[in-house]
Amino acid sequence: MSTIRQDPTTKEWVILATERGKRPHDFKKPFPEKKIPEFEPKCPFCPTNEALTPPELMRIPDSTGRSWSVRVIPNKFAALQGEGEPARREHNDLFREMDGSGYHEVIVETPFHNSVLPLMTVDHIETLLLTYQSRYKALRDKPWLRSIIIFKNHGAKAGTSLEHPHTQIVATPVTPMLMRRKYEVAIAHFDDTGRCLYCDMVAAEKETTKRVILETPYFVVFHPYASHVPFETWIAPKRHQPSFAQALPEELRDLAQVLRKTLRGLYQVLGNPDFNFIVHSSPTEDENKKYYLWHIQILPRITTIAGFELGSGIFITTMIPEESAPYMQQVLEKID
Amino acid sequence: MSTIRQDPTTKEWVILATERGKRPHDFKKPFPEKKIPEFEPKCPFCPTNEALTPPELMRIPDSTGRSWSVRVIPNKFAALQGEGEPARREHNDLFREMDGSGYHEVIVETPFHNSVLPLMTVDHIETLLLTYQSRYKALRDKPWLRSIIIFKNHGAKAGTSLEHPHTQIVATPVTPMLMRRKYEVAIAHFDDTGRCLYCDMVAAEKETTKRVILETPYFVVFHPYASHVPFETWIAPKRHQPSFAQALPEELRDLAQVLRKTLRGLYQVLGNPDFNFIVHSSPTEDENKKYYLWHIQILPRITTIAGFELGSGIFITTMIPEESAPYMQQVLEKID
Repeated sequence: MSTIRQDPTTKEWVILATERGKRPHDFKKPFPEKKIPEFEPKCPFCPTNEALTPPELMRIPDSTGRSWSVRVIPNKFAALQGEGEPARREHNDLFREMDGSGYHEVIVETPFHNSVLPLMTVDHIETLLLTYQSRYKALRDKPWLRSIIIFKNHGAKAGTSLEHPHTQIVATPVTPMLMRRKYEVAIAHFDDTGRCLYCDMVAAEKETTKRVILETPYFVVFHPYASHVPFETWIAPKRHQPSFAQALPEELRDLAQVLRKTLRGLYQVLGNPDFNFIVHSSPTEDENKKYYLWHIQILPRITTIAGFELGSGIFITTMIPEESAPYMQQVLEKID
Repeated sequence: MSTIRQDPTTKEWVILATERGKRPHDFKKPFPEKKIPEFEPKCPFCPTNEALTPPELMRIPDSTGRSWSVRVIPNKFAALQGEGEPARREHNDLFREMDGSGYHEVIVETPFHNSVLPLMTVDHIETLLLTYQSRYKALRDKPWLRSIIIFKNHGAKAGTSLEHPHTQIVATPVTPMLMRRKYEVAIAHFDDTGRCLYCDMVAAEKETTKRVILETPYFVVFHPYASHVPFETWIAPKRHQPSFAQALPEELRDLAQVLRKTLRGLYQVLGNPDFNFIVHSSPTEDENKKYYLWHIQILPRITTIAGFELGSGIFITTMIPEESAPYMQQVLEKID
């Protein structure tokens, strides 16, 4: 029989229907045969093609100082663009809209077209995380922005259109409903207990142990209780900190190692799967509250979001985290 | 510049970034070359393979009376299964779960493996809708069920694993958060105005006209103001009725024509696109309230749900409904 679990952070239900499913090792796909070149002449993110992108916002030089190792540019096809509190309009009392002001940036992760984040060095991933944080802090200072979302789409099923490794940042002038919902739940928990819901959840995962796949001085990595998809993974800091901007340099250094190991595990176990990751952070105006803990959510895209999920918001997953987590934990033990 | 619009039914924001996008006719894909056979020996839904499925729940005979034209069976890989109020468990005060009791049924839409819903006859689609309603009513009588969702996944991108045309029904012992959210918004509107939010929205769409693609004696079809994806389409009844169980025979007869025409338009304009549709209906216990209007939401799956959508709940679409609707309206005029 399947079970229905409640996500403690949103109170949404997830159906875990393992009868339909497979064992952890059955999810592995063969690595694609296609050889990707290190340099792709038509790729706008490859070196020497810098003029194909809008003017650079930030650049981390490479070790020679002659070229770059990370670049930040505005998205050429920006979903949001333009400065300042957006003008609002209303029609028929029901239909509200505003100008799409905001920011949409691209972090080109590497000069190498055929590189993949799980295989990069710890040092390079640390540089990337520092770049994420630097852009996050730059956007946070604009008081008309409500939310800054850092995310990565890897592979076609995860919604990427460009093969060259890149991360995106979108800063919106509205608070996403999903964040409002998470806040509502977290504030209710704080009112009840005086504690951060997310810190309590991390503590409970540590106490339960069977869903934890990695623990370091600063982070805990686990397959959450109400996983939405097989191998969903959360990386959460141990110290209470609502915003990603508050992570300290030594925490980001540790995170580089943790993120690399976690993504490398998924890469090995699932065969370079398509995936999304999202850096969830508090609304920019609430960084000093006790309600929230920033965290990274990794969602492998090995299943398809279908009509039931879209129509109900209830995900059906075919793998329970108590089965995937011990498997992944063993794999991570063998990765440096 | 893009615009950000609020979905009046959930208060969620959608980004309409048309600069990234194309004109309505650019979304058309060539029809696939692959010939699908009328009968597929290994398909569990094809005639003569009836023994491969669990025992039949309902059957509509064909005109000869010797075989069937529609079959309803339990899903062999049911996400929910079993009778009665589910047993609940709780761990660490945070982790709640219950047994996965509920129903998961499959409506095999036709004996013909290569048929597609948009090309079926009005009479056959009417039979299908009557079958949906009959199963809906059968499940509605179980007081421990909270929600009944009828949905269809057409094509691999929409999450189907079986090619043979079929619709699914899932009945859950919990109320989905998405439905709670829609209810919260609709009740607030009712408290403010004394009117059904959805009926007001349909009236506003009719008054605005530019997003309406079809109107019949009983239904209005439109591309909603805050469309989540290009060519999202809603079919809503004109008479206030919270539950799909309340649709009258003459309304379902009209709906058969409306659904066929709408799906046929999408089939022509987008080239047999992958799509989901969902029959949204009130919670089973609230059928006589003034808050809700059942409706069908059709979501073509021609774009991918990526990290930003999953991380924020905000969809980015590349087509504004005021552009897709007049185009589709013209197409529908030429369909019988």
